[in-house]
Amino acid sequence: MQARILALLRDEGPLSRVQLADRIGVSRTTIAAEVGRLGDVGLTQEAGPAESRGGRRSTLVDLAPDIRFVGISIGATAMSVGVTDGRLAVLATRTRSCDIRQGPEVVLAAAIEEVRELLAEVGVEQPMGVGIGVPGPVDFSRGVSVSPPIMPGWDGYPVRDAMSREFGCPVVLDNDVNVMALGEQHSGVARTTRDFLFVKIGTGIGCGIVVDGELYRGVDGCAGDIGHIRVEDVGPTCACGNTGCLEAFSGGAALARDATAAARSGRSPVLAALLEQNGVLTAADVGTAVSAGDAPSLQLIRDSGQRIGQVLATLVSFLNPGLIVIGGRVTGIGHALLAEIRGVTYRRSLSLATNKLPIVLSELGDEAGVIGAAWLISGAVYAPGSASRS
Amino acid sequence: MQARILALLRDEGPLSRVQLADRIGVSRTTIAAEVGRLGDVGLTQEAGPAESRGGRRSTLVDLAPDIRFVGISIGATAMSVGVTDGRLAVLATRTRSCDIRQGPEVVLAAAIEEVRELLAEVGVEQPMGVGIGVPGPVDFSRGVSVSPPIMPGWDGYPVRDAMSREFGCPVVLDNDVNVMALGEQHSGVARTTRDFLFVKIGTGIGCGIVVDGELYRGVDGCAGDIGHIRVEDVGPTCACGNTGCLEAFSGGAALARDATAAARSGRSPVLAALLEQNGVLTAADVGTAVSAGDAPSLQLIRDSGQRIGQVLATLVSFLNPGLIVIGGRVTGIGHALLAEIRGVTYRRSLSLATNKLPIVLSELGDEAGVIGAAWLISGAVYAPGSASRS
Repeated sequence: MQARILALLRDEGPLSRVQLADRIGVSRTTIAAEVGRLGDVGLTQEAGPAESRGGRRSTLVDLAPDIRFVGISIGATAMSVGVTDGRLAVLATRTRSCDIRQGPEVVLAAAIEEVRELLAEVGVEQPMGVGIGVPGPVDFSRGVSVSPPIMPGWDGYPVRDAMSREFGCPVVLDNDVNVMALGEQHSGVARTTRDFLFVKIGTGIGCGIVVDGELYRGVDGCAGDIGHIRVEDVGPTCACGNTGCLEAFSGGAALARDATAAARSGRSPVLAALLEQNGVLTAADVGTAVSAGDAPSLQLIRDSGQRIGQVLATLVSFLNPGLIVIGGRVTGIGHALLAEIRGVTYRRSLSLATNKLPIVLSELGDEAGVIGAAWLISGAVYAPGSASRS
Repeated sequence: MQARILALLRDEGPLSRVQLADRIGVSRTTIAAEVGRLGDVGLTQEAGPAESRGGRRSTLVDLAPDIRFVGISIGATAMSVGVTDGRLAVLATRTRSCDIRQGPEVVLAAAIEEVRELLAEVGVEQPMGVGIGVPGPVDFSRGVSVSPPIMPGWDGYPVRDAMSREFGCPVVLDNDVNVMALGEQHSGVARTTRDFLFVKIGTGIGCGIVVDGELYRGVDGCAGDIGHIRVEDVGPTCACGNTGCLEAFSGGAALARDATAAARSGRSPVLAALLEQNGVLTAADVGTAVSAGDAPSLQLIRDSGQRIGQVLATLVSFLNPGLIVIGGRVTGIGHALLAEIRGVTYRRSLSLATNKLPIVLSELGDEAGVIGAAWLISGAVYAPGSASRS
């Protein structure tokens, strides 16, 4: 009951006791008592008069203004951290590059440093909880990452417990794509949809699956691992060791690899100049080259979108979702890639399933993971048994 | 509350009032009152003493023995109909061939005839409800079939209302693969699993998706339509009009087509003899030829299983289910096909997702659809507001 009150205030903003009683389907007396208890432990407060409905003026209940959550979204090559209030509005956030292959000690130490600085910036000593996403499969109940193909040293590492000791508060751990999907569901373009796919195209490729309003993790926690779907029998070797994986053709790392080859072979003078200038090429450089009118770069993005679209067409026929959100660090190449993905997905999947299916770019960008991770821990903190200030 | 009591008695058998109160989490007084009301309308009855737990002997509550449901599962070339009791035990069932392309009037008239004969056989005048599955997408809430690729004349046909008038009782309509999946969940190999795929390989190919114990229909009701996933850019023309669809390569109709070609070309003397003998070849004939040691027929089944396995590998990486059940009218070719599907699926999908993933043949056969259709209508009949004898 307390958890439902807190979740409603988080997701809908200040509500009167009458509104809370209506939404939850219990008596006003019950709500008044529960709100009283939540106020006593400092989780809620009065928030001014509600709009009059002719009767006695009632007061709105809101979450306490000093609730703070931390969201950490760690990708293969970059991490975003942020501090939110109780309604998951982002108060401060930053993104820095990191290399997941350096192992949990180094990467988590960097995350802790960023979080400490952000907390100091917004004047908070102690968050109420920390949510974390990592770029690989997670044993959700134990809070450890498991056999991650691109994460040497992370297998079985007790991420949740280590971070919980560090910050002295509850911590939840999930896959980075899952937390980004949750962020889109709470604050992004998927706000009004109960059934959608969030496709992250970063260094690798992954998918968050929301069915009937709930994130679906699969029986082993690895649902959505579409980067390792085999799209060809032969192909470049993937980070996971297999060949033919989607992300070995179409992920950000693959795009950087193919761009480097195009620069070195002389096929793309624009990419060659960028390589000369920066020493290395990234997926973002391909976007820059496209903006400069470089045809070979546009072709690279089209080939990438083609294969992603083929896989999405299959998933659309299979699951018949209501929306596909494309996110991840594809800034700069997003629109060219999106056009190709849309074309292939619509052309190849059943008309009934694509009639009304929007395929759109994320508008939250790096904040999706921060908000989603904060959402995840807010749910745990607001849940019965945990609903007290630590 | 009444719906939950009835569903528990359906799924678990006779229970004492104490057990019912424990399962539902309400007081024994409340349960006693509700059971009293259900008994008054003839839905439940006393069923002898419960095993003593040392205290006062309590009596078991059971569903009334005269509750009867009808389940109808219509495929592209055959239909199964059956009558069940309140716990969905099949009292009588039969399967007959039919051609879905003859349109709703002809096909439903045949179904009605079969149901009338079965009802007479088991001495029932009026069923409490009828569940129906049809081989195409369904608008579940309106009870009509929608734009079915292989079902000319069925688009928008009010199947539910027509059958409800005919039998004078509530009717629900769903996709045939969905009702088969529900049958497997209630009475088949998927009884103990909350997350599984049911793959029907009949004339066409389809998939029922159960996530977290619930059938998932997708936003337009066409989730699981995997027969029209495009596995090649070119290929034989599908019944839906496109080329490259999975079922145009691997469905029962495709197998019959390829077997006929193998017979006519002289590649398979065994198939040629069967064609000579029967005038036409079916998928079952390919199974007969395999049993007779015919190598070209085994190759046909392997090619079919190969492409199905490729698609299932993708779906396993995507959804990470706990079980795959293969069903449909693949009798006779089941084990050879299963071996190929297993080999390809395990080889091509992520080890984490297939570590513990059983891929098994249905043991219910034609009864899966009958039981699932009966399950669907039993839920509607037992639900609040409908829980009275009509």
